[in-house]
Amino acid sequence: MRASLEELPTPAPLVDLARLRRNAEAMLDRARAWGVRLRPHVKTHKCPEIGRLQHGGRIGPVTVSTLAEAEGFALAGFQDLTYAVPIEPGKFARAFALARRVRLQLVSDDADAASALASASERAGLRVPVFVEIDCGDRRCGVDPEAPVAAELARRIAESPSLELAGILTHAGHAYDARGADEIGRIARQECETSVRFAGRLRAEGIPVPEISLGSTPTMTHAEDLPGATEIRPGNYVFFDAFQAVRGSCGWNDCALTVLAAVVHRDSARVVVDAGAIALSKDLGPAREDSRAGYGRVLDRNGADTGLRVARVSQEHGEIDLPPGADPSAFPVGSRLRILVNHACLTAAQHAGYWVLEKEAAVDFWPVVRGW
Amino acid sequence: MRASLEELPTPAPLVDLARLRRNAEAMLDRARAWGVRLRPHVKTHKCPEIGRLQHGGRIGPVTVSTLAEAEGFALAGFQDLTYAVPIEPGKFARAFALARRVRLQLVSDDADAASALASASERAGLRVPVFVEIDCGDRRCGVDPEAPVAAELARRIAESPSLELAGILTHAGHAYDARGADEIGRIARQECETSVRFAGRLRAEGIPVPEISLGSTPTMTHAEDLPGATEIRPGNYVFFDAFQAVRGSCGWNDCALTVLAAVVHRDSARVVVDAGAIALSKDLGPAREDSRAGYGRVLDRNGADTGLRVARVSQEHGEIDLPPGADPSAFPVGSRLRILVNHACLTAAQHAGYWVLEKEAAVDFWPVVRGW
Repeated sequence: MRASLEELPTPAPLVDLARLRRNAEAMLDRARAWGVRLRPHVKTHKCPEIGRLQHGGRIGPVTVSTLAEAEGFALAGFQDLTYAVPIEPGKFARAFALARRVRLQLVSDDADAASALASASERAGLRVPVFVEIDCGDRRCGVDPEAPVAAELARRIAESPSLELAGILTHAGHAYDARGADEIGRIARQECETSVRFAGRLRAEGIPVPEISLGSTPTMTHAEDLPGATEIRPGNYVFFDAFQAVRGSCGWNDCALTVLAAVVHRDSARVVVDAGAIALSKDLGPAREDSRAGYGRVLDRNGADTGLRVARVSQEHGEIDLPPGADPSAFPVGSRLRILVNHACLTAAQHAGYWVLEKEAAVDFWPVVRGW
Repeated sequence: MRASLEELPTPAPLVDLARLRRNAEAMLDRARAWGVRLRPHVKTHKCPEIGRLQHGGRIGPVTVSTLAEAEGFALAGFQDLTYAVPIEPGKFARAFALARRVRLQLVSDDADAASALASASERAGLRVPVFVEIDCGDRRCGVDPEAPVAAELARRIAESPSLELAGILTHAGHAYDARGADEIGRIARQECETSVRFAGRLRAEGIPVPEISLGSTPTMTHAEDLPGATEIRPGNYVFFDAFQAVRGSCGWNDCALTVLAAVVHRDSARVVVDAGAIALSKDLGPAREDSRAGYGRVLDRNGADTGLRVARVSQEHGEIDLPPGADPSAFPVGSRLRILVNHACLTAAQHAGYWVLEKEAAVDFWPVVRGW
């Protein structure tokens, strides 16, 4: 197929194939240089085609944020999955069903939940691989690696006949709050060193730690090296977005996801498009650095920055204020604009798939796996 | 069916059937008392079952925000639909396909778009009903009713052989920014009077105006009467939410939508649940009135307010800070909480349907029509 942007239904998420490939290859190159496995977090796009592209066109290991993503990627042929949210008993049955068909690695940071998992997997006749999630400073999930319960949890998993200690997993989510390359670089070192130090303690106690898995897009674009780590799990890097560009994790020309929108109203003060709070998400992205950021940057249909922003959104309306004296006749109803989004992961999750853009025409549509 | 909350997969949107019915009946009563037709805006829930419930269990007229909603409701038997976003040429073909099967009323506020619609509907052999959208103070869409172009647009639609002037439509979206019953009541009067005055001018010029359609949940819960209006289009009222409760459009016990979530992590400082930015949306709701609002109020599994809030969200994590000295053993991993959401419409749009709650058990699942 080859469809012009005028032929697509709006609102429509567009991925720029050249940028997507370049972003994917850059992270593969980094992983190779560091000597670690790349297990991209596919929550960003939920799209098996993009998952393959992140492995240079092949099936490879991936990280997921929902069991629905895990099931969808398994159907698409992916065989090695980490579900990177701590497992809770309400999800055991579905996880076990999938674990009979592919390698599904789970995560825990809680002794009671791990015990319940051990009992349930024993009853199911399974041996389930489990990572211990540690907190390297993010203060979201993960057990404090300095607390005695951390090593105790790892030991109980390692010694359980129905569990397998897959390794240690951490996520430096606090890098999203950091400012500047130096601070993000410091957090990247902390993410790695905290994990390697904890693994060293476990190994000294005779507990084998096969994997040390870490990474976020900010830390993986700012790290210099990752001594001791075996695996990285960045996600957003394949799309990037306004937030990452403002924080210096990418350039504006690396941003691969835009939303094609049609003008539905214009007057002398504003233009309204058919991409609103659902099509874009209400993520405020770089609002702290850029008080004008709003809900996205307005590009023309060819991808050039117009300097305008989506100032307000309601459910299906995106409002773009025009500067005084602007000529609204440049925006007839039905004309198309593209919105460079604040937070690609949340925008992407709103859509049924992506129009794949090559040389300013759509050449394919790639469906996604949504829900839970 | 009858499933306990422990049996449902999480995150799961729950609708309280008794509250839903009460909210629906209260608005039906208001419409009857005012002598106007209720054409609820189903963008709030996108669910044909709830659309019927809003008409006392019968098929009735509805308002939609996307053609996908229009198509889905038409399949479910709804015959009289208003697509309340200004129509743009990229949507003509789909709108016309549907217009051959049901009454599909469109909206325009633009002379060029209306001309293009007239030409296209003539070529399609259709006569399409069109509302003129006027701006009653919201400053989003709608033509200024005091400007000469407003009456001119209505006249061109009325005189076009392939269009039918359905009437005047407006939406007082600025009521969402108003504070207090007095100000919202004032906006409700303005919404009605602006529309009736414009209709009077058109009628004086010999242009028939069959319908005057208006309404938002805030204005329709605060209006005293609506002299001259023929139809109201509130949407949110069937669910209500934290924003509407804080703004005084409902009580806390009227809020019918919550998200059931499972605890995935707990420590002495916080509890993390599996409802994050996607499952809840990033709408900040009543942040202006309530600096602690965060991304939702935490209820226990029975719906009682715990006093806790979802302070931060990432894609699939919702973080709930515990007060100093709280006992995290009250929140074992796997236990369930309910989140009373900030903005029900945006939360609802994230899910595939609703678990229908009656006497604290799920008795049905009602699917929705998503996308565009």
